Amino acid sequence: MPELRQNYFTKEWVIIATDRAKRPEEMVKHREAKTVARHVENCVFCVGNEGKTPPEVMRVPNAAGDSWQVRVVPNKFAALSPEAQPTRTIQRSRRTMGGFGVHDVIIDTPDHSQIMALLPEAHIANVLKVYKSRYDALSLDPRIAHVTIFKNHGGDAGASLEHPHSQLIATPVISHQVRERFQQALAHYDEYGECMFCQTLEEEMTEQSRIVLATDHFVAMELFASPTPFCTPIYPRRHMASFGDISAVEIADLARVLKTVLAKLYHGLENPDFNFTIRSAPAEYVGVKHFHWYVSIIPRMTRTAGFELGSGMFINTVVPEAAAEFLRNVKVELGVGAGG
Amino acid sequence: MPELRQNYFTKEWVIIATDRAKRPEEMVKHREAKTVARHVENCVFCVGNEGKTPPEVMRVPNAAGDSWQVRVVPNKFAALSPEAQPTRTIQRSRRTMGGFGVHDVIIDTPDHSQIMALLPEAHIANVLKVYKSRYDALSLDPRIAHVTIFKNHGGDAGASLEHPHSQLIATPVISHQVRERFQQALAHYDEYGECMFCQTLEEEMTEQSRIVLATDHFVAMELFASPTPFCTPIYPRRHMASFGDISAVEIADLARVLKTVLAKLYHGLENPDFNFTIRSAPAEYVGVKHFHWYVSIIPRMTRTAGFELGSGMFINTVVPEAAAEFLRNVKVELGVGAGG
Repeated sequence: MPELRQNYFTKEWVIIATDRAKRPEEMVKHREAKTVARHVENCVFCVGNEGKTPPEVMRVPNAAGDSWQVRVVPNKFAALSPEAQPTRTIQRSRRTMGGFGVHDVIIDTPDHSQIMALLPEAHIANVLKVYKSRYDALSLDPRIAHVTIFKNHGGDAGASLEHPHSQLIATPVISHQVRERFQQALAHYDEYGECMFCQTLEEEMTEQSRIVLATDHFVAMELFASPTPFCTPIYPRRHMASFGDISAVEIADLARVLKTVLAKLYHGLENPDFNFTIRSAPAEYVGVKHFHWYVSIIPRMTRTAGFELGSGMFINTVVPEAAAEFLRNVKVELGVGAGG
Repeated sequence: MPELRQNYFTKEWVIIATDRAKRPEEMVKHREAKTVARHVENCVFCVGNEGKTPPEVMRVPNAAGDSWQVRVVPNKFAALSPEAQPTRTIQRSRRTMGGFGVHDVIIDTPDHSQIMALLPEAHIANVLKVYKSRYDALSLDPRIAHVTIFKNHGGDAGASLEHPHSQLIATPVISHQVRERFQQALAHYDEYGECMFCQTLEEEMTEQSRIVLATDHFVAMELFASPTPFCTPIYPRRHMASFGDISAVEIADLARVLKTVLAKLYHGLENPDFNFTIRSAPAEYVGVKHFHWYVSIIPRMTRTAGFELGSGMFINTVVPEAAAEFLRNVKVELGVGAGG
C-alpha cells in the first residue's frame, strides 16, 4: 500500500508510491559516455579566455601561482543588476522592486572536463571557501536581504554551459518560500524550545535507516518524506543558522562529505544531472536558535508534472530508506563509513 | 534593468529578466513534425483495448452510441489506493498517513493522434463535464480532503503515454501549499473585505495589457508576476471558490476559452509541452468568499534550476505583457476577440 509522509520542516505531504516503487538501480538513465576536452577554445570559462568574462571579482591561485584554481566573475547574463535601485512600488495589486542584486559565476576549476565529484577534497574546500567569502561580503551590504548559492549540473538541471561552475544570486528580498520555512521553524522552536533540525538529526542518527554518511561535523541523509528520489540534504551537526558561521575545520569536513555524496551519485547512478543549493537563514538572522542551514543535493531523475504543479505535493517512486541503503553501499575511494 | 515583481496571490517574488528577455517567438523549440496514428494496437487507451484497463468508472458515449467519446478508468499505476486506510501515525518527527486516495485517468478521446487544442468545443465540454462529475462524486466522500485535476502533455510535462488523457488524484489531506495559498486569500479578505482574485480581475480588465482573452464568463491572462513564460491562468468572472460550482453555461464557455488558449499555444509556440491543472478550494470549503478557483495552464518551455529550487523564486525571461500581446495576436479559427 502507498504511504503519505509529511515533511517535518516544510509541512508538505509526499506520496511514497510503494506500489509502483522502483529499485534504486532502475532509476539510472544509461547514457553514452562522451569524451570532453580539458580545454575548449571558445569556452569563456577556460584558461586563456579570462578576457571574455566581465572583470574578475576574486580568484584562488593555482599551486604554481601562475594561474587560477577557482575564479569568480559577474554573470554576463545576470538575472539582477548591481546598477539597479531596490526601490519598491505598490500600485493596487502590483508590487514591484527595481531589479537590484548580484549574480556571480564561480568557475569551479580551469579543467573543462572535470566534475565536482572527482575534484580533490582540498580543491572542493577552496570552492566552499570562495562561496563563504562571497556570502560574507554580500551579507554586509544592507541592500542585500538573502543570498542563494547553487550549482546546476547537466541539461535536466538547467545548466546551459558545460564548464563546471556554481552560481550565487543575492536578492534585495527574502523569498516567500524562504520566509515561510523560516516561520515554520520559528513556530516549532516557540512550541518545543528546540531547533527542529537538531531534533531530527538526533532522531535520525539513532534510527540510522536514512543516514547516507555521518562524520564529526556533518550528516548526509534521505528525508523521511523525501520529495524526489535520492534528494540528499547535508546538515551540519553543530547548530548554526547561517552558512556564514561555518568554521575552517567544518569547511574541510564538508568538502569531504560533499565529494563523497556526489561521488556516490556519480558512480551509483551514472552521473545523473543534479542541482545543489545552500539553504541558509537570511543574513539579517545570523545567530537565531530556530533555523539550521544545510546543503540540499537534488538529482533530477524525474519530472514534475501536473499533480506536483497543481498541489505542491510530490510522488516519490523510490522509498527513502531504500535510497539511503543504496547510496551507503556505493563504495567510493574516499569511503568514509556510513552511519555513526 | 531587470525588475522584481511579487505575485499578489502567493506573495512569491519573480525576477523579470528584462536584460536577457527573449522575444516570445525566440522561446519556440522547433521540433520535427511526426505522424501519429489514430489507432495504436498496443495502446491501452485506444478503442478495442478497453479490457486492458481496470474496470471503467464512467463514460460519455459517442454520437452513434456504439462506443465512447470520453472514458474514465482507475490508473493502473495509481499513486494512492482506495483500499488503504487514511490512518494517521505520529511518532516524534515522523508523520504518516495510509495512502488512501483515488487516482483516475480520464481518456479525453478515442483518437490516439488528437490533442485537446484541436478537439471540437462540444467534445472539450464533455471532458470538463466528466471532470466535474468525478470532482462532485469524490467530494462527497468524507475521507477525501482535496481533489487535483490535471493534464500532462508531452515528455517535458511528465507525460509517459502519448494517447491524450487527463488525470485526477483525490487525497485524504490538503497539501501545505494549497492550505497556505488559501490562508493568504483569507488574510486578504479579512483585511480588505474582498476576494483578491475578483479584485485583480477587475484591475486587469481595466488595464488590458495582460489579458489574452475575455468572454462573458472567463478571463485568460498572464499574471503581472508570471513565474514562467506563457503561464496562462483562466479565471471565472463570477466568484466561485469551488470548481464544483461551475454551471452548464460556464462549462460551455470554459470549453471555448480552454480550446482557444490551447490552440494559441499550439499554433503560436509549435505545440509546446504543457500541464494544466484546476486549482479549486478544498471540498470542505465550498462557498467561501475569499478563494476563487481557476485553471492554470503551464507551458514547459524552461527548466527549473538550482536558484528556483533553492529560493522558491523564478526567473522569467519573457515579459508577461509581451507574452500576452503575442498570444492575443495568434489567430485561431475560434478567434474570440481579445480583451473586453
